[in-house]
Amino acid sequence: MSIEVVKLSEKFGKFTDRWSPKIVAELNDSYLKLVKIAGHFEWHHHTEEDELFLVVRGTLHLRIKESSKEKNFERNLVVHPGEFVVIPRMVEHLPWSDEECEVILIEPKSTLNTGSSRTARTLETLERI
Amino acid sequence: MSIEVVKLSEKFGKFTDRWSPKIVAELNDSYLKLVKIAGHFEWHHHTEEDELFLVVRGTLHLRIKESSKEKNFERNLVVHPGEFVVIPRMVEHLPWSDEECEVILIEPKSTLNTGSSRTARTLETLERI
Repeated sequence: MSIEVVKLSEKFGKFTDRWSPKIVAELNDSYLKLVKIAGHFEWHHHTEEDELFLVVRGTLHLRIKESSKEKNFERNLVVHPGEFVVIPRMVEHLPWSDEECEVILIEPKSTLNTGSSRTARTLETLERI
Repeated sequence: MSIEVVKLSEKFGKFTDRWSPKIVAELNDSYLKLVKIAGHFEWHHHTEEDELFLVVRGTLHLRIKESSKEKNFERNLVVHPGEFVVIPRMVEHLPWSDEECEVILIEPKSTLNTGSSRTARTLETLERI
């Protein structure tokens, strides 16, 4: 395996499609992926995978569902460039963005973009760039 | 576990010591760590862990030892802000920097900073910030 320095901006310049994570590296049991996001995705959770979102450009929103003793509630997280959030397994989340944003994802190789359900938006294979 | 957005610059502002990675998040079997680097570390490798270096500020250098059919050689990788490199397990590497740089590390929880050897620079426990 050749060891090369990867420039994020160069990789983000290689694609324009949204909601379609591209694999740019693998390490241990995980992939590092780049994704462009605009508009709304759909509610989902990952049964066994924690997911990291690190924002490079634009503003990412993540609605999440949480529960305390007696009630469930929703919260909206706002993630700016230079900020990240980890969504633990089993937590329902819905990524969205008003304007296009660029995000680094780190998640186990087993992670499906739509989580525990296969839907019209499920991607069975991801491109490597 | 509370889910919070983490601002990298705010976390980097919390410490000044170098070569002492701080844990800022965990996901799956890995930690996300922040480290400040200046000067030279020491040659080491990790037996079972691939290691990601993503540079936020400054310029990181990584000398690595590689081998082809009949010879061994060294190479120096230069990683600027917005760039990353994955050092696969078993690859000897020596991180260094002329001036202080700030780096995000992602690596399995089992990873020791000095790799397969315990030396004077080994850190048995890492601070969480």
